[in-house]
Amino acid sequence: MKQNFMKQALNNALKAEISGEVPVGAVIVNGKSGEIIASSGNRVEELKDPTAHAEILVIREAAEKLGQVRLEECDLYVTLEPCPMCAAAISHARIRRLYFGAYDPKSGGVEHGARVFSHKTCHHRPEVYGGIMETDCSNLLKDFFKKLRK
Amino acid sequence: MKQNFMKQALNNALKAEISGEVPVGAVIVNGKSGEIIASSGNRVEELKDPTAHAEILVIREAAEKLGQVRLEECDLYVTLEPCPMCAAAISHARIRRLYFGAYDPKSGGVEHGARVFSHKTCHHRPEVYGGIMETDCSNLLKDFFKKLRK
Repeated sequence: MKQNFMKQALNNALKAEISGEVPVGAVIVNGKSGEIIASSGNRVEELKDPTAHAEILVIREAAEKLGQVRLEECDLYVTLEPCPMCAAAISHARIRRLYFGAYDPKSGGVEHGARVFSHKTCHHRPEVYGGIMETDCSNLLKDFFKKLRK
Repeated sequence: MKQNFMKQALNNALKAEISGEVPVGAVIVNGKSGEIIASSGNRVEELKDPTAHAEILVIREAAEKLGQVRLEECDLYVTLEPCPMCAAAISHARIRRLYFGAYDPKSGGVEHGARVFSHKTCHHRPEVYGGIMETDCSNLLKDFFKKLRK
């Protein structure tokens, strides 16, 4: 089940890459019914919006669909460890569980750097599960950056 | 000059409060010409968008207007110390200078908690000036939360 959701997130990452974006993808799922509520890849370049990371886009889509600011029954799947912006947005949205694929020592904000969920000033910490389909998620990014350097 | 921009941000905060939002306001200014490029209050409840903090909204508006992801000539004025989400967005957008009003020991992410700009994983740190018109900015929020508790 979790793998299916991460596969959908990976598909979104692949589509993002084809559109000229850094390949990161996400989905938001109702944790009880298993229904996918929002699904997106990174769209920073397409939208000319520096905040249009996959996680922000699925949070905004899910909140709009459900008509509520807090997504307490929702789980978020994303192919890469969220940056501090996305980690804090996940906290604001009261996401129940965060599943991510590859760890991101260079820009991550969950297990690295700002470690957004690890401070008293963080008012909601989701359950966090890292390393879901890690090899697939990680290879997609490694291949992308290898091609960029050529 | 700086005070004028912060006054505009304060006006946006006041308008947000009238709309039933936590009163925080922001503007983005071209740091060279002094032109205001984007201006907004917090709109989380109105838009049912947990990411719709004033800073995120002005960054998105400015990037859309200028048609570019990086706002390297731009300065951001906001009445409250940004949270980690907004601090990281400011970094992604390559904002040149950040001016904020009140310090936020409970939820801030610049001088408190995650201290987003203080890590190697943060790839752009704006110049930061805190405490601009601090009393006005702080009183607005204090009054708001006092009324809430009544």
